Amino acid sequence: MFYHVKELQYHAKPERPDPVFARMLQEVLGGQWGEISVAMQYLFQGWNVRGNEKYRDLLLDTGTEELAHIEMLATMIARLLEGAPVPTLEAAAKDPVINAILGGMNPQHIIVSGLGAMPADSNGNRWTADYIIASGNLLADFRMNLTAESQGRLQVARLYEMTDDRGVKDMLAWLLARDTMHQNQWYAAIKELEEKENIVVPSTFPRQLEHREVSHVLFNTSAGNQSAQGRWAHGPSMDCEGVFKYVEKPVPLAPKPKLHPAPPNIHNTPPEDC
Amino acid sequence: MFYHVKELQYHAKPERPDPVFARMLQEVLGGQWGEISVAMQYLFQGWNVRGNEKYRDLLLDTGTEELAHIEMLATMIARLLEGAPVPTLEAAAKDPVINAILGGMNPQHIIVSGLGAMPADSNGNRWTADYIIASGNLLADFRMNLTAESQGRLQVARLYEMTDDRGVKDMLAWLLARDTMHQNQWYAAIKELEEKENIVVPSTFPRQLEHREVSHVLFNTSAGNQSAQGRWAHGPSMDCEGVFKYVEKPVPLAPKPKLHPAPPNIHNTPPEDC
Amino acid sequence: MFYHVKELQYHAKPERPDPVFARMLQEVLGGQWGEISVAMQYLFQGWNVRGNEKYRDLLLDTGTEELAHIEMLATMIARLLEGAPVPTLEAAAKDPVINAILGGMNPQHIIVSGLGAMPADSNGNRWTADYIIASGNLLADFRMNLTAESQGRLQVARLYEMTDDRGVKDMLAWLLARDTMHQNQWYAAIKELEEKENIVVPSTFPRQLEHREVSHVLFNTSAGNQSAQGRWAHGPSMDCEGVFKYVEKPVPLAPKPKLHPAPPNIHNTPPEDC
Amino acid sequence: MFYHVKELQYHAKPERPDPVFARMLQEVLGGQWGEISVAMQYLFQGWNVRGNEKYRDLLLDTGTEELAHIEMLATMIARLLEGAPVPTLEAAAKDPVINAILGGMNPQHIIVSGLGAMPADSNGNRWTADYIIASGNLLADFRMNLTAESQGRLQVARLYEMTDDRGVKDMLAWLLARDTMHQNQWYAAIKELEEKENIVVPSTFPRQLEHREVSHVLFNTSAGNQSAQGRWAHGPSMDCEGVFKYVEKPVPLAPKPKLHPAPPNIHNTPPEDC
Amino acid sequence: MFYHVKELQYHAKPERPDPVFARMLQEVLGGQWGEISVAMQYLFQGWNVRGNEKYRDLLLDTGTEELAHIEMLATMIARLLEGAPVPTLEAAAKDPVINAILGGMNPQHIIVSGLGAMPADSNGNRWTADYIIASGNLLADFRMNLTAESQGRLQVARLYEMTDDRGVKDMLAWLLARDTMHQNQWYAAIKELEEKENIVVPSTFPRQLEHREVSHVLFNTSAGNQSAQGRWAHGPSMDCEGVFKYVEKPVPLAPKPKLHPAPPNIHNTPPEDC
Amino acid sequence: MFYHVKELQYHAKPERPDPVFARMLQEVLGGQWGEISVAMQYLFQGWNVRGNEKYRDLLLDTGTEELAHIEMLATMIARLLEGAPVPTLEAAAKDPVINAILGGMNPQHIIVSGLGAMPADSNGNRWTADYIIASGNLLADFRMNLTAESQGRLQVARLYEMTDDRGVKDMLAWLLARDTMHQNQWYAAIKELEEKENIVVPSTFPRQLEHREVSHVLFNTSAGNQSAQGRWAHGPSMDCEGVFKYVEKPVPLAPKPKLHPAPPNIHNTPPEDC
Repeated sequence: MFYHVKELQYHAKPERPDPVFARMLQEVLGGQWGEISVAMQYLFQGWNVRGNEKYRDLLLDTGTEELAHIEMLATMIARLLEGAPVPTLEAAAKDPVINAILGGMNPQHIIVSGLGAMPADSNGNRWTADYIIASGNLLADFRMNLTAESQGRLQVARLYEMTDDRGVKDMLAWLLARDTMHQNQWYAAIKELEEKENIVVPSTFPRQLEHREVSHVLFNTSAGNQSAQGRWAHGPSMDCEGVFKYVEKPVPLAPKPKLHPAPPNIHNTPPEDC
Repeated sequence: MFYHVKELQYHAKPERPDPVFARMLQEVLGGQWGEISVAMQYLFQGWNVRGNEKYRDLLLDTGTEELAHIEMLATMIARLLEGAPVPTLEAAAKDPVINAILGGMNPQHIIVSGLGAMPADSNGNRWTADYIIASGNLLADFRMNLTAESQGRLQVARLYEMTDDRGVKDMLAWLLARDTMHQNQWYAAIKELEEKENIVVPSTFPRQLEHREVSHVLFNTSAGNQSAQGRWAHGPSMDCEGVFKYVEKPVPLAPKPKLHPAPPNIHNTPPEDC
Repeated sequence: MFYHVKELQYHAKPERPDPVFARMLQEVLGGQWGEISVAMQYLFQGWNVRGNEKYRDLLLDTGTEELAHIEMLATMIARLLEGAPVPTLEAAAKDPVINAILGGMNPQHIIVSGLGAMPADSNGNRWTADYIIASGNLLADFRMNLTAESQGRLQVARLYEMTDDRGVKDMLAWLLARDTMHQNQWYAAIKELEEKENIVVPSTFPRQLEHREVSHVLFNTSAGNQSAQGRWAHGPSMDCEGVFKYVEKPVPLAPKPKLHPAPPNIHNTPPEDC
Repeated sequence: MFYHVKELQYHAKPERPDPVFARMLQEVLGGQWGEISVAMQYLFQGWNVRGNEKYRDLLLDTGTEELAHIEMLATMIARLLEGAPVPTLEAAAKDPVINAILGGMNPQHIIVSGLGAMPADSNGNRWTADYIIASGNLLADFRMNLTAESQGRLQVARLYEMTDDRGVKDMLAWLLARDTMHQNQWYAAIKELEEKENIVVPSTFPRQLEHREVSHVLFNTSAGNQSAQGRWAHGPSMDCEGVFKYVEKPVPLAPKPKLHPAPPNIHNTPPEDC
Repeated sequence: MFYHVKELQYHAKPERPDPVFARMLQEVLGGQWGEISVAMQYLFQGWNVRGNEKYRDLLLDTGTEELAHIEMLATMIARLLEGAPVPTLEAAAKDPVINAILGGMNPQHIIVSGLGAMPADSNGNRWTADYIIASGNLLADFRMNLTAESQGRLQVARLYEMTDDRGVKDMLAWLLARDTMHQNQWYAAIKELEEKENIVVPSTFPRQLEHREVSHVLFNTSAGNQSAQGRWAHGPSMDCEGVFKYVEKPVPLAPKPKLHPAPPNIHNTPPEDC
Repeated sequence: MFYHVKELQYHAKPERPDPVFARMLQEVLGGQWGEISVAMQYLFQGWNVRGNEKYRDLLLDTGTEELAHIEMLATMIARLLEGAPVPTLEAAAKDPVINAILGGMNPQHIIVSGLGAMPADSNGNRWTADYIIASGNLLADFRMNLTAESQGRLQVARLYEMTDDRGVKDMLAWLLARDTMHQNQWYAAIKELEEKENIVVPSTFPRQLEHREVSHVLFNTSAGNQSAQGRWAHGPSMDCEGVFKYVEKPVPLAPKPKLHPAPPNIHNTPPEDC
C-alpha cells in the first residue's frame, strides 16, 4: 500500500518556461527508458518475487522512489510549458521567435493536455508496457534494470547538454546522481547472484542438455574478422565452462527445408513441384 | 550486404505436428525477447557504430546469425502447424482432442497465415520495434544485449520443459547453447569496456556535475529494511567512487509545487484558490 | 446499411492553405478524442444494443452524423495542405518562411499521403481502437460518450483560438455547436437512466454483496487534507445509500503477502529465505 | 513523493490456484479500464492541476489508493498462477483437466512472467497510455474518471459472477465497494463544477461564437425515429440555453467538395477531368 | 454526408449461438484485412482524390458499402455470442463442453463488451490505422485495394470451411461474392490506369533519373537459382522498357562504410581505432 | 542461413550532413512501406512457401536484397545526422539556422539513438509487424508485394524531389531503379499465377458456393453516378465469369436486426422494450 506527501523529492523548477525543451524532457518521463518504465518495471518485479525478501524490498524501495521522479518530471514539464504561445498561427507566422517555438514544441501540449505533462515520449508516442519486463528470474531482470538505468542516465546526460537553464540542470544533476546509485545497486545485486549462480541465465537449466559443442563458439557470419581480436574469441569462456573458439567460415548444418503442402481447405497456392 | 543459403544453420524438424506448441514457440520468434528482436537490435547497433570496428564486426556477426535463427524458428513453426485441424467447429466440438487443439492454438495460424509462422508472440501481438534499442553508447547497449540473451534463454528453457518432441528439443538445445555463447560474449565485451571506463554509463559525463551527495545512497522509501542487508547498502560503492549509505527515513527536499494558472485561451478549469 | 451523398454536412473550406494548421487539425480527426473515435464508438454501441430501440436509434443517428464530420475534416485538411512547399530542403533552408512551414508540418502529409488527410493525430500517431468502448451497459457507455464530446469540444475550442482563417473558424464553430448538442443529448440520456437505476454502474449488482463498510469512504492516502473540504467527504452520498466518511489516516488491512516458490521447471531464481 | 508499506490495503488471497481465472483477472489490472489506467490517469491529472488544491488533493488521494489496488491484483494473480501446470504438452494432451487449463490460460504467464502478473489485459495486450487522459479541464477529466469507475466496476462485477472462490470474491467485493465510492466522489465533484459552470465543456468558450442554430438539434440521419421519443428531442435543453429540436430529414448544407490537383513533384495521379 | 437505414444489406443470422466462432469471425471484422480496414481505406482514398471524379465516386460507393459489412458482421457476432456461458469457472471446470467453449472464446466478449462485437481481430488486437493507406497515387492505392480484397476473401473462405452453421455460411457466401466483385472492379480500374500510365508507379517520375542499369536486373542474393526459371529473369520486362537480366553472383558496389565519431556531448562510446 | 559482407550494395554517402532530411528519410527505412517492411515480408513469405520452389527462391532473393537496403539507409541516415547541432537550446534560440534544424529534426536522433538511424518512420513511430502479411496464398501475397513496391517507390520519388544533395539523390536513384525491377518482377509473377488460376483469390474456392447473383454487381451506395462510367460497371467481368451490372438504387435485403437480451450476470442495461 502507498502513501503520498505533497512535497517533492527534489526541486523541479526551471528559471524560465521553455516549451521546446518541455517536449524533449518528455523522453525521460514517458519514453522507452523514462521514469514510468522503471517505476512500473521495479514494482511488478517486486510484487512477483517469490521468497528472497531482500531483493523484493530493494525493488519496492526503488520502484517507489521512481514514482517520485515521475512526479518531479511532470511538475517540471508543466512549468516549462507555462510560456507556450497560443496566439493565432497567422500572428505567429510573422514572429520568428514564436514561430520557432511552435515548430519545435509538441502540439498536443496545447491541444490535448492543456499545458500539462503527458505519459508519452519526445515524439508524442504514448507509453506502453512493451518497454518493460518482470520474468521471475532475478538475474535476468536485474540485468534489464542495469540496462534501464544506463540508457536512462545516458539520455539525461544528453538533455543536460541541451539547456542552460540552471533550474533544469539542477534537477537533471539530481537524476544523474540517482541513476549513478541505481547502476551501482543493480551492479551489486548482479554480482551477488553471479557469484552464487555463475553468469549464464537461467543457471538452473542443466548444461549437459544444451548442444555444448557450440556453447562457446563465435561464428564469423559477417565477412571481415576484426571480431576475432576480442576477448570473446579466445581464452577461457567467461562462465569458466569452456574455451572460446572462433569459426572463420561457418557452414549450415541442416538441409534445405521442404514443407508439406497445406490441406485444400486452407486455400493456399497449391504446389507446382511436389 | 547480405547473402542467403538455402540450408539451415541447424535442424528444425519436429517428430510430429503440434499446433498448440507452434503457438507457444512464437514467443521466441516474434515476442519481446525473440529472435526478431535480437537480429534487428544487433544489426542497428552495428550499423550505427562510429569507430570501434571490433565491436561493429561482432554486432554484425551476431545479428547475421540471429537472422538464421528466425529462419529456423519459422521453419519449425510451419512444420508444427501441419497437423492443424480445419474441420468445421461443429464437428470439432464432438471430438475432445480436436477441440483441445483448436482451443489452445492461435486462430490466426489458420485464418491469417495459412499454417505459416508469423512475426508475432504467443498471444498474437505483432512484433514492434518498441522492444529494442541502439543508443550509440556501447556499454549501455551491450548491457541490453546481455539482458536480451538472458531473457531469451530463460524463455527457451521454459519451452524446452513443455515438450517431449525430440526434434523440437534438439533445436531448442541448439538455441540454448547459442544463447550461452552470446551471454558469454556480451559479458566479455562489457568487462572490457568497464575496465576501461568504470561501470557508470555514460562514463564521459563529469561526475562533479551530478549531485554527488546522493550518488551512493539507498532511500528506504518502502517500509521494512530487508534491503539494508544487501551489498548495495554498505561498504565501498561498486564504482569505487564512494561509500554506500542507507537512509532509513528519507524525506522530501523540495516544497509542495504550485503551478501557475493557464492562459484563458487554453480553456482549462480556472483556479478557485489562487 | 448506409448511403452517402456527395455534398458536405457543412462548409469545410479555408480562406487559404496552411499546412502547419493542417497538422494540428489532425488531432480532432484521428486523435484519441477525434471524429473517428466518436463515429466508431457510437456505431459499435448502437449495433450491440439489446432491446432499448430508442437508445439504439440515437446511437446510430449520432454515429452516422460523425461519419460526416470525419469527411468535413478530411476535406478541410486536404485543402489546407494545398500550400505545402515541396521545394528542395536546401532551397528551403534559405527561406525562413518555407523553412518554418516545413519544420512545423507533418512530413507524412508530403511523403505518405501526398497532401491528403490521414487517420492519425497531430503527432502522426495512427488511430487505434484502444481509444473506444462499447460495453453493453448503456449508462457506462453514455458516460464515455459525454466524456468524448467534452474532450472533443475542448480540443476544438483550443484549435479555434489558434487560427485567424475565417473559413476554418466557421467550420470549427459548427463542430463546437454540434458538440454542444451531443453533450446535451448524452446528458439527457444519462439523467433518464440514473433516475431509473440510481447512479452506480452496474445498478444490477446486489449492493449487499460488496464491502459496504467502504462504499462511501474517502481514504486520505495523500498527505494534506484539502480533499476533506469537498462534498465527497461529508453528508449523504450521491447515491443516497450512505453517508460520506473521511479517513484521515488509512491503514492497511491485510498482512504482507508471501508468495510460494515457483516449481523448478519455471527456472525462476530459487528463494534464499523460505 | 511516495512511501510504501509492505502490508496490503485489503486481502488478496484465493482459496486455491486457478490459472485460467488469473488470465481473466488481468483485464482489471492491465486492461483499458484496469487499475493501471486509473492510477496513472488520476496521478497525471493531479500533477497537472493549476490552482484548485481541493481537486488536486482528491486526485492524488485516489491515484495513490489505486496503486494499492494494482498491488492487490498483482498479488492475487501471482497466487492464482501457483497451480499452473508445466508438464510437457504431450503429457497434458492425455489429461483433459490439465489440457483445459493450458488451453484457457495465458501462455505468457508461463513463458514470459514465470507465474507472475503482467501489465496486460485478458488477451495479453500490454497496457498503453492510449487509454487515459489528463486535459487540464477538470470537468472533462472528472467525466472520464466517472466513466472509468463505471466501466471498471462493470468488469469487476462480471468477474465476480465467474468464480466460486471465496478468497477471490472477497477481494472483488472490496474493489466493487471502492468503485462505488469513486463513482460517488467523481459524481459529487462533477455536480459541484456543473453548478458553477453549467454543463457544456469548456464553459469558458463564448457560446455566441458557435453556430447556435444547431446547438440543440438532433439530426435524424439514421432512418427510423425512435430517437424522437427521448428527452433529447424535445423540451428545454439540459444546459437551459435553448430548446431541443428534432430534424426528421437532415440535408447537407455545403456543396460537393472539389480539391485542386497536387503539384507534379508530389507524383499523385494527375487529374483527368479538371 | 451519410444516411443509415436500419435494415441490413444482407442476412446476418446464425442457426445457433457459437461463441468460439464469434471470436474467429472477429478477424474479418476488425483484423488487418477486415471490413473496418477496407471501409476506412476506401473512404480516406475517396476524400483525398484530386480530380478524377469517376474514381472518387467508385471509392465512396465501395467504402459506404463496406460500412454495411461492418454492421452485418457486428450483428452476426453479437448473435453468436448469445450462447456464451457465464457460469462460474469452477462449475465450468466440471463440464467439458462449457469448458471447451470458455477456453476457445475471447474472454473480453464477456468481460469488456458484454456479448457484443469488438473492433478487434481474432486474437483481441484492437484495430489500428497502421493497416491502411491513402497515398494520393491511385494506381498504388488500387493495388492495395486489390490486395485487401484478395486477403479478405481468402480469410472469409477459410472461415467458411470452419463452420456448419447454415446462417453463418449464407452470410459468408454473400461476402465472398462481394469480394469477388471488388477484386474485379479494382482489377478493372488498375488495367485502365496501367494502359494509360504503364505499370511502374509513380509513372510521372522521369525514368532517365533512376539508375537504369539495374532497373530490370534480378540479383541472386539467395543461393540456388530456381528463381532464374521465372518470367522475371529473362525476356522483355513487363514495362516494355528493357530486358530482364539475371545476375548469378551479385557483388557489392560501394566500399565498407566508416562513420565519423560523434561529438562529445552526445556521450557515445568514444572510438578506439580512428 | 545468412552471410554478411561489410561493403554496401550501393553508395550511401551524402555530400553534407542534413539532420532534417535524415528525419524524413526514416520513412523509407522504418515506415509502413519502408525497407524493414519489405525485407520482413518477403522473408516470412519465403519461409512459409509450401512447394513452389521457384517462388520461394525469388522471395528469399529479394528479401535478402532488402536487408542490404536497410543497411544503406541506416548508413545514409547516420551520416546525415553528423551535422546535428547539440548546443544548448538557449544558444540555439539566437541562431535561426540552428533553430530551424532543431525544430525540423527528430529529437530522438539526439536523445535516444545518439546520431544513429532508428527502426521508425518520419514521425518517430516505431516499426510494427502490423504493416506486413504472409498468408500462404501467393497471388494474394504477390499483390501485396506489388503494392509495397509501388507505395515505396512513390515515397522515394517524393523524397528525391526534396533534396539537392547529389549523394542522397544518387542513392535514391538506385532505390528507384530497384523498385522498378521489383514492380516488374512481382507483376510478372502475378501474371503467371493469374493465367493459371484466373484473377479472383482464392481461386480454389468453388464459385458456385458464393452468392453469384452479386458477384459482378456495383452498388451505387454513394449518390452520384460518375462511377457508372467505368469499365467496372458494364461489359464482361474481368474474371470472364459474368457481366458487370450497375445497381442505381441498392436496397437492403434483410430486416432490421433485433438482438436478444443478455443474461443478468452480464450486467448490461436491461431492455425496456422487449
